[in-house]
Formats: sequence, C-alpha cells, structure tokens
Amino acid sequence: MDNIETPVVIINLKTYSQATGEKAVLMAQACERVSNEYDVPIVVAPQMPDLYRVAKAVEIPVFSQHMDPGEPGRFTGHVLGEALVESGCAGTLLNHSEHRMQLADIEEAIQIAHKLHLYSVVCTNNIQVSVAAACMRPWSVAVEPPELIGSGISVSQAQPEIISGTVKKIRAVNKDVVILCGAGISNGEDVTSAIKLGAQGVLLASAVAKSPKPESVLADLVGPLSK
Amino acid sequence: MDNIETPVVIINLKTYSQATGEKAVLMAQACERVSNEYDVPIVVAPQMPDLYRVAKAVEIPVFSQHMDPGEPGRFTGHVLGEALVESGCAGTLLNHSEHRMQLADIEEAIQIAHKLHLYSVVCTNNIQVSVAAACMRPWSVAVEPPELIGSGISVSQAQPEIISGTVKKIRAVNKDVVILCGAGISNGEDVTSAIKLGAQGVLLASAVAKSPKPESVLADLVGPLSK
Amino acid sequence: MDNIETPVVIINLKTYSQATGEKAVLMAQACERVSNEYDVPIVVAPQMPDLYRVAKAVEIPVFSQHMDPGEPGRFTGHVLGEALVESGCAGTLLNHSEHRMQLADIEEAIQIAHKLHLYSVVCTNNIQVSVAAACMRPWSVAVEPPELIGSGISVSQAQPEIISGTVKKIRAVNKDVVILCGAGISNGEDVTSAIKLGAQGVLLASAVAKSPKPESVLADLVGPLSK
Amino acid sequence: MDNIETPVVIINLKTYSQATGEKAVLMAQACERVSNEYDVPIVVAPQMPDLYRVAKAVEIPVFSQHMDPGEPGRFTGHVLGEALVESGCAGTLLNHSEHRMQLADIEEAIQIAHKLHLYSVVCTNNIQVSVAAACMRPWSVAVEPPELIGSGISVSQAQPEIISGTVKKIRAVNKDVVILCGAGISNGEDVTSAIKLGAQGVLLASAVAKSPKPESVLADLVGPLSK
Repeated sequence: MDNIETPVVIINLKTYSQATGEKAVLMAQACERVSNEYDVPIVVAPQMPDLYRVAKAVEIPVFSQHMDPGEPGRFTGHVLGEALVESGCAGTLLNHSEHRMQLADIEEAIQIAHKLHLYSVVCTNNIQVSVAAACMRPWSVAVEPPELIGSGISVSQAQPEIISGTVKKIRAVNKDVVILCGAGISNGEDVTSAIKLGAQGVLLASAVAKSPKPESVLADLVGPLSK
Repeated sequence: MDNIETPVVIINLKTYSQATGEKAVLMAQACERVSNEYDVPIVVAPQMPDLYRVAKAVEIPVFSQHMDPGEPGRFTGHVLGEALVESGCAGTLLNHSEHRMQLADIEEAIQIAHKLHLYSVVCTNNIQVSVAAACMRPWSVAVEPPELIGSGISVSQAQPEIISGTVKKIRAVNKDVVILCGAGISNGEDVTSAIKLGAQGVLLASAVAKSPKPESVLADLVGPLSK
Repeated sequence: MDNIETPVVIINLKTYSQATGEKAVLMAQACERVSNEYDVPIVVAPQMPDLYRVAKAVEIPVFSQHMDPGEPGRFTGHVLGEALVESGCAGTLLNHSEHRMQLADIEEAIQIAHKLHLYSVVCTNNIQVSVAAACMRPWSVAVEPPELIGSGISVSQAQPEIISGTVKKIRAVNKDVVILCGAGISNGEDVTSAIKLGAQGVLLASAVAKSPKPESVLADLVGPLSK
Repeated sequence: MDNIETPVVIINLKTYSQATGEKAVLMAQACERVSNEYDVPIVVAPQMPDLYRVAKAVEIPVFSQHMDPGEPGRFTGHVLGEALVESGCAGTLLNHSEHRMQLADIEEAIQIAHKLHLYSVVCTNNIQVSVAAACMRPWSVAVEPPELIGSGISVSQAQPEIISGTVKKIRAVNKDVVILCGAGISNGEDVTSAIKLGAQGVLLASAVAKSPKPESVLADLVGPLSK
C-alpha cells in the first residue's frame, strides 16, 4: 500500500443521512479537493454499502468503518477484509466506540489487515486501552474519550492529558504505530492543539459530515497542517 | 416495491471468495440469466461492500445479508436501511444463523424495512422460532435447521416435518408471510420436495456460490419451478 | 413446581447496592413478610451470586435475573438452568431490556426452563415483540417500554394502550401465558391501573430496591391485590 | 487481599454437571484438601450461582468464572464485582474463550477488580493478545490456545513456544503480572513442562471437574509443585 503520510485527518461519515449513498461520494470529493489544495492527507470512511462507489470516485484513501475477523467462506453478513480490498478500500477502522469488538477479534482483524495490506486504525477509549491496542501492532491507534464523541467539546482542549499520556505510554511499547486522537474535534485550533500534544492526526465525524458546508470546515481543519 | 412473485429462490453469496467483488457481479448475472430464461424469480444476496456494484449490474432483486436496526446518525460501522436503499437493494436477510440478532432488534429492523419499502426475510432455526418471527410481520420467514446449513444434506429430504410443521403453525398466526426453507438445498429435487411440503421458495448458498458452474446448478434448481 | 397464583408482583433487585449480598436477603425477607400478610404472591429476583443465599432464606419464589441457554458442560461463565435449580430458584427472567437476548436463544432457554420446571418470564419492549415472545410459550411475558424503566413514570398511566394492546394481541395466539407489565410502577395506584388494563401482575425494581423503606412501599403496592 | 503465592493451580468448574450445586462444594473441598496436603495454592472457580455456597465451605480462594464491568445500579442480569465481594469471592476470570469480552470492558473490569481488591485473570488465545492483556495490568494473564481447550492435548507439550513466547514478550512490558497457561493440562507432567517454560501456574478444567476421582487427579497435578 502507498504510505499514508502524517499528520493525517480521517473523516468518519458514520450513518449520517447527509453522507449516505451519492451524498457520501460528494462528501468524499470535497475531502479530496481540500486534501489536494492543502497537500494534507485526508482519509474518508463511508458506510460499508457505500465503499465501492466512493472508492471508484476519489483517489484519496477510503477506509471501512469496521471489519470483521475471519477467513472467506461462511459468515453471512460479516464484512471481511477480502471484500474491502475488492471494493477498493485502503484500510479500516476497528473497535469504534459505536461498534466495540472483542479483544481477540481485534487482534485477528489486525493480522488479517496486515496480510491484505490494509491500514488498520484501532479506536480506544483511554490511555491503558490505547497501550493494549498498540501492543497488537495495528497501523494506528486513535484514542477517543467516548463522552466527548459528538459533543462539540474537543478532546485536545478538554482532556489534553489523555493525548499526551497516550503518546507517552504507547511509545514505551511501540515506536512505529501512528497515534491519532478524536472526539469533539471541530476546527483548526483543535487540530493544532492535538498535534502539539503529540498526536499525528485526528479522527472526526460530525463537524464535517453534518455541516452544510463541509468543504470550508475541512479547509479550516487542515489549514494548520498545510506544508 | 415491485412484488416479488413466489415461488422464489434466494441465493446467499455469504463471504465465499468465489462470490466477492467482481465475482459477485458475475454470479448475480448468472442468476439473472437463469431467472429470465426459466421465468422464475431469483434474488441474490452479496456481501455489504458488493451491494452497490451488484445492484448496478443486474435487474433482479438484490438483498443485503444483514441490516442493523436504528435511525441514521451516529452508529459507526452499522448497516442501516437507508444505506441499503441508496445502494439499490430491494431487501435484506435478517437473523441468519451466522449473524443472529436480538429479538427486539429483529422487530425494529422489520419495521424499518417496511417503512423503507425493503423486503425482509427473517431466518429461523425451528418451528417455534419461525412462528415467533412470523408474528412480527416480516415479508418472509426462512426456516433453516442450523446443523444442515452447508451440509449438502437437504432439509426437505432430511427433516421434511420442519417445513410442513412451520407452514402449518405459521398459517395459524399469519396468512400473508412468505414461507421459505433452506439448509442443504442443492438441486431441483430438493426444491421440488420443499414446494410440495408447502414452502414458497428456498434460500441457499454453497451449492451455487461454490460451484465452478453456478449457471447449470441454478438451471437445475429452478427448472421444476418454471412456468 | 408449585403454581404461582396471579396477580403476581415480581421484584427485580437489579444490581443495586441496597440489594446486594446480605442486603438482598433482607430485601427478600421484607417481600416474604408482605406477601404473607397480604396474601399476594411476590417473587424476588436477586443477582446471580445471591440466588443461593436468598433461596435458603425465604419461602417465596426466587427467580434469576437471567439464564443462558445451553446444556451443562463447557460454557465458562454461563448461567445454566441446572445451576439455577441447584440454587433453589423457581424461575428466571429472560431478555430483560438491560440483558437482551438473541431470538433463538430465548426460545432455547424457554424450552430448557420448561424441561427443568423453572418459570420463565420473557421481558419485551412493545406489543409486537410481546406477541412473538408469547408464541414461544414461556410461563409469562412482561411488557416494559424501555424509555419508562426506572423513570418513575408508570407504564399503566403513561402508555395504557401498550398494556391493553399487548393483552388483546397475545390472547389471539396464546390463551395461557401470564401477561405482566412493568416500567415506572411505583405504587398501588399504578398496580390497580395495570390490573384493570388486563395485566395479571407487575414487574418492578427501583421503587422497592432503592427505597429506604421497602416494606411500606411493598405494602402499598400489593394492597390493592389483597384478597 | 491475601497474597496468592505462585506457582498456582486454578480449577475452572465450567458448567459441568459433576461440579454444579452441592457437587461444586464437594469439588472445592477436594481442592482444599489437596492444597493443604501438598502446600500448593489451588483456586477454584465455580459457576456464579454456586459462588456463595462454595466460598462459605472452603478457605481456599474462590474465583468467579466471569465478571461484568459497571457500577452498581441498573444492569439486570449482570455480574458485578460488588456482588462477588459480598459472596466471598477472592477474584475472577475475565475473557475466557467461552465468554469473550470487548477490549474496553476487560480494561474496565480490571480497574474495578483492582479497586475492590479482587484478583483478575485475563484469559488470552495467543502471544500478541497476552501482551495486550498484560498492558492493562490485571493480576494475571492465562494464555490458552482455544483449539486445545478440553482436548486432552496439553499446551505445554503441543505448543511449548506459546508459553515461552508469552513469558518473554509479556516481561518486556510488565514485570509483575502472573503468567499462567492452560488448555489440555491433565497431569503432573504437563504442569512440570509448563513451569519449566516459564509459566507460574496453570488453569485447567475437565481433567479435574469431569474425573470420577478428582482428588487423585489433583494430587498428581500439584505433586511436582509441592515444596
């Protein structure tokens, strides 16, 4: 897989009406334009049924919001890595706080993602869980205090010690994993704070996906990261 | 939604390698050709990431293998009805034995499917569970003894009393629901037996999806249903 | 099993500190005294680790708050019917809104409870789910609108049509099942309303288990049912 | 809590009929006699409904087979730490392969166990998951390759590299956690091999719980650990 540079911004489209179907494509195209204009890597994570049409429409990396572990075969209704690859995905979120996974399944999914050259981002809820996730060697760990998700109150402002603590504790066990943070990130100032605290990027959703003007929100977000 | 006539044959592609990505499209096109040639309704159920490309490629109904309940908004990684509609799906399986659902979630998903004009097929494992499912008024109930799924031993041959019993008990509480059966169905004889026992169609997977010649398997399967 | 007469009051102790360990025993003894004084059947449902000590201490029926399906053997951490019987339980709640179960597991658990002569109460969240539950022939169905659980707003006052509707629709498919209601029930007036709407008893928790004077709350609750 | 010395042997009674109710008490008493005779710590883990009666009957440590995270209050059917303490438990297994838990729930349960002075043993399925578990600082990690559980083929004979690898990799991140192994352990030779490979004890079930002579199996198991 092409290397995704850091700092990176991941836009999770969740299941917002404003970002479903053809609207997911439009949202991804807005991400692509801003990514190109500011020369900052932006990843977009649409719903599973939208992965193929979005991946066909843009050149920026497309991630799934979830991936199940398991080998192809039975498993009706599961979302396996092989299908993500065939849909043009570059990676996947794992263990989002709205789709928590069992410990052993996270590890198996990370292994499968690695084998299939898919980026894996394990979402976590605090410092200790972040360290545990980092030990399983995903591409990235994204720490997001659940109580701030969708709150509009930025983790980098409200709980800066979670970001700096996560960075410090993870680096003691894993030098390579990309460390992201999320929850309540909504503008360039939040991003700047996060980067100063040691994060290598941010994961966010509603500030972009629910905005009537996603492109200007994105521009504000990535502005501080522009080279 | 257009009425899906019965008897109907539903082909579940599960997560078989032979039916993922572009191969899911090829499989769906084979289903479409056989459906047209024999004038028998065939529904195809690919993996979630393949729904859009398959629905774009064929005219026959495309079902999802699963749908989560819930309204659009948060719910990262969930597969909501709105996304299925946007992908061109006509319906969804629910509660497959490889993706069991909670009782209240099945009921909520049925209501949402109804509201969105999506067909819903609740998979069940025995007579009593089938009756319970039928009370929640999905479009269809598909009874599949789990121990026969993927076995190559047909439910209509090995446990005919499950089919006839399900039909009898369901009709006492629901006159309209379409009653299907599955598990081990692999040829036209199995289909004929199922119909004779009162089923209005069959749900099957491996016999078609793992076959090197899916089209001839399909022709054999639907032959007895041709008008 | 001895027949539990109706109307019946089931007190769910949940995991309240005020009703854990020896305090669960005291709470059960209060239930027993009120049950005897007013000649109204009261069932108490303590936490799993408290079942044995409570069942040893009182003569009134003791129910578990949950039971897993499955036969004895492996299944570390599961709560099987055989262990409930050995602990002196008379029955179990199933599918409480705080411990939802898969459809097929509910049905299997009902069958096992029946085989072991344990009473089974399937909790449900609306009319349609109640009818589905009733089709699987538990001893009882207890309808509880989740949004009212623990609210202090009584289902029998706020949503009387759910009780009367559940009674009417269940009776079309099952003449024998005991129909209970719950959510927000906190005094004798709520109980009287519920009975007038056709319920054969009530399921409640916080009004008793969190009260500093559970015995007087209980007396008020069962007063209207006294013969 | 009293310090549990190592090497330690944990006997998981699972849901075996031979170890349910009063038979769980007899099994625990056999463990206690052997523990005293050989001066080797033995822990017994009965089913949740049996915890109180077993803890009343023996002096050796009694562990639950599972504990849910969460604070006292609602959570019908959950097994919280407070109830374990009130039942006389000294600790709990977490994340057994027959009762897998979500990553964040394991971490929360470990924190709660710590706060309540309960020993916590996180079961894991391979080296990488063991390291992740160790990062969350439970009292112990018990690695058990799932395919060998209940097989009669000992992990210490069949996959010695899992034990030695787990010990080596865990020690790089956590110097204090007690490292156990399990799966297929059935006699003193298996225990000796495990200890030589660096394990500080074993977790086993069927060899004892299904034996007609559990006491002699136990004597054989702990003999090599006798001081």
